[in-house]
Amino acid sequence: MSPHEIEPVIAALDAGSDAAVARLTEILKIPSISTEPDHSPDCKRAAGWCAATLNEIGFKASVRETDGQPMVVGHYKPAGGATGPRVLFYGHYDVQPADPLEEWDSPPFEPRVTDDGENGKVIFCRGASDDKGQFMTFLEACQAWKKVHGSLPLAISVLLEGEEESGSPSLEPFLAANRRELAADYAIVCDTGQWDRDTPAITTMLRGLAFSEVVITGPSRDLHSGMFGGPARNPIRALTGILADLHDKLGRVQIDGFYNGLREPSLDQLAQWKALQFDEAGFLDGIGLTRPAGEARRSILEQLWTRPTAEINGIVGGYTGPGTKTVIPSRASAKLSFRLVPGQQPDRVLAGFRKFVEDRLPDDCSVEFANEGGSPAVGFDISAPAFQVAARALEEEWGKPAILMGCGGSIPIVESFKSELGMDSLMVGFALDDDRIHAPNEKYNLRSFRKGARSWVRILGGLAEL
Amino acid sequence: MSPHEIEPVIAALDAGSDAAVARLTEILKIPSISTEPDHSPDCKRAAGWCAATLNEIGFKASVRETDGQPMVVGHYKPAGGATGPRVLFYGHYDVQPADPLEEWDSPPFEPRVTDDGENGKVIFCRGASDDKGQFMTFLEACQAWKKVHGSLPLAISVLLEGEEESGSPSLEPFLAANRRELAADYAIVCDTGQWDRDTPAITTMLRGLAFSEVVITGPSRDLHSGMFGGPARNPIRALTGILADLHDKLGRVQIDGFYNGLREPSLDQLAQWKALQFDEAGFLDGIGLTRPAGEARRSILEQLWTRPTAEINGIVGGYTGPGTKTVIPSRASAKLSFRLVPGQQPDRVLAGFRKFVEDRLPDDCSVEFANEGGSPAVGFDISAPAFQVAARALEEEWGKPAILMGCGGSIPIVESFKSELGMDSLMVGFALDDDRIHAPNEKYNLRSFRKGARSWVRILGGLAEL
Repeated sequence: MSPHEIEPVIAALDAGSDAAVARLTEILKIPSISTEPDHSPDCKRAAGWCAATLNEIGFKASVRETDGQPMVVGHYKPAGGATGPRVLFYGHYDVQPADPLEEWDSPPFEPRVTDDGENGKVIFCRGASDDKGQFMTFLEACQAWKKVHGSLPLAISVLLEGEEESGSPSLEPFLAANRRELAADYAIVCDTGQWDRDTPAITTMLRGLAFSEVVITGPSRDLHSGMFGGPARNPIRALTGILADLHDKLGRVQIDGFYNGLREPSLDQLAQWKALQFDEAGFLDGIGLTRPAGEARRSILEQLWTRPTAEINGIVGGYTGPGTKTVIPSRASAKLSFRLVPGQQPDRVLAGFRKFVEDRLPDDCSVEFANEGGSPAVGFDISAPAFQVAARALEEEWGKPAILMGCGGSIPIVESFKSELGMDSLMVGFALDDDRIHAPNEKYNLRSFRKGARSWVRILGGLAEL
Repeated sequence: MSPHEIEPVIAALDAGSDAAVARLTEILKIPSISTEPDHSPDCKRAAGWCAATLNEIGFKASVRETDGQPMVVGHYKPAGGATGPRVLFYGHYDVQPADPLEEWDSPPFEPRVTDDGENGKVIFCRGASDDKGQFMTFLEACQAWKKVHGSLPLAISVLLEGEEESGSPSLEPFLAANRRELAADYAIVCDTGQWDRDTPAITTMLRGLAFSEVVITGPSRDLHSGMFGGPARNPIRALTGILADLHDKLGRVQIDGFYNGLREPSLDQLAQWKALQFDEAGFLDGIGLTRPAGEARRSILEQLWTRPTAEINGIVGGYTGPGTKTVIPSRASAKLSFRLVPGQQPDRVLAGFRKFVEDRLPDDCSVEFANEGGSPAVGFDISAPAFQVAARALEEEWGKPAILMGCGGSIPIVESFKSELGMDSLMVGFALDDDRIHAPNEKYNLRSFRKGARSWVRILGGLAEL
């Protein structure tokens, strides 16, 4: 058997699928919510589980402390010396908070496999798709390969992060401090989606992100709206007034300089997107909507892939419990985020936002900004060999050409890999639009899980031949 | 001696002031906290004390059970047949909880008389001002009158409630069930304050209230702002956009018909308010503000007493926990309330608000309204004889004209007396802004107590002459 033969590994994967789901279930059960301090022990437990699993496969892996949640790093060097490029695989073991809990059909951290009719067997759990199910496809591929061939075909390092859902504060320092150890030819990132259920995709563009929290304070204390209502400044009114000004009637963001430096898509790009025959009505229908709400006269793919946004992700002020309370609160706050495209700098966008708010602040209100951060957008050269290999491998597995697509989301790690380690990232993932990531009843199709692992086997085999 | 002669009664009051303070001390010692079930026996004990005290004066009084804390009702009919109007006096024997206990300088239910320098002798105790000290001014006036003249000058009924501090759930049913028994020409309510330490006041206007909760739904589920941001409708943006429209730049509420039927204050009223030389800067400074935020070109007293408001009392949507979460939520909601003035109907204001929201609802959003309710404003005809008598009596006692003032808040009992029993309420009280009602170290000035009782003697004498 050739050392890079693929079919026996695929067969081993298929034969071991029950054990693979059992391993996925183990890690899904750990509620590793990185934004909630109460769940810090769970994050540590998840990291320990990941390191142990890598060691079982044959990696030399350990849990590495940071100022926040730990990293898991594992290295594998083929016994006979490596061929092909060195790769660094990235995933994250932390998950989003599960709230609102009451909207889940079953407890968010009790994995449940069921046939949902539309997708066949799916596994429900917070993190099933983002990102535990996804990174486990790669580990399962490695496991099967090692079992069949006795050695992996490439020098592979694995980096699993525990703070992706809370802004990755420890990641850049960790990369900077371990540059030599983590250096590779390519990063492989499994945190993205397919084009659709039957069509694989490589994500070659990612929007960036900038985020901020704005806190407006009016009166020095909460007031009774009868005794003070009228003359007293209401900070909720101040906040809603400012936020309502963020977009004009055509959906354009009104922050000064927000669109400076942006490029329009090329005619080629526009033609390629048009050829995708993207189902705009179906996309909207899937989320209960009928009309695109972004900038006027832009297609949905443009609005998602190459146009920046300003969104209010959360707002709170005053009394929000049951019934009524006639209070004028002392403060109100909102969390905002901006999706960025190439040409925009997070710091400049945030400075523009602060000025936008300050310019509109009513009398007697003060403002503070908190929780700021972000990363710029990225776009890769898709003619590079690793991209070509991955595209062919995906087509073999799925029977359809892989779409080279943009992504409306941000994967800050990809920007950090470029800036800290000088690597491009091969972003291949198997998530689907209906996986409900970041929402109640998140799920991952078992078909995504199985064919995802098979896809990685083919990609690893292809990379080993480079 | 004429049967309505006042000065001998005043003299009797002054001579008996030590005994009066002793009686006040007795009732203050009973911790009749109506919101705390542990104190139910104390509420019953306080009700019993009040009934006994009324009976000692010569009323025919009893404790009347309700589903909650009991009412105390007493009736007095002058022996020789009544002259003047029949009056129903209202007060409440229940008190606010005393917490935070550690902020009291002495135990909250051990009345303590001390000279505080600024106010002369004051009595510290929970309930000293709200409302035990206040309603006892009236009972002391009756006691002295009866002692001197052998009979009270009017048909007087007394209603003392035990649930005012817990929303008065039993009051309307009790009024409805005892309409005939409690019917009178005027209610007299002693639960309000003076203009300042030396200036008496009659409260003749109370703003009404309408309240509603608006819930806007956009996408059918929470969305990832990267994967959907741009084309997806954000309900927080819809909500803030609509709420930002509620007021124009001059602070006027933009709901259609909101100001219909409102009357401007008379030139007399405006002149009287101007003469009060209300300390606008001091009022605002007390709540950390420097400029009135209500309708432009209205004084603070107008904004508080005779102008309606629209306030956002609470708002919530999306992620509001620590850190950041790039979600586009499915829904967002806000609680609003409207302070109303005479001429406005709660139902019409709420209908106008619903239409205001519906007219501005963006594509693909739906709206629901919840938690609606309210009560209209009350404003009494101050040219009515009882108001004129009371104003004159107060001026005699205090040496300064009584201020006819508004109150920005609502006193539901006054609305109930109007709607259930068809009576206007004469609201006269002697509380001061520094009495710390609802707060630690509540006190009542003994001067308020003494001159309050003297004021009632003069008011009763005046009413008897009508």
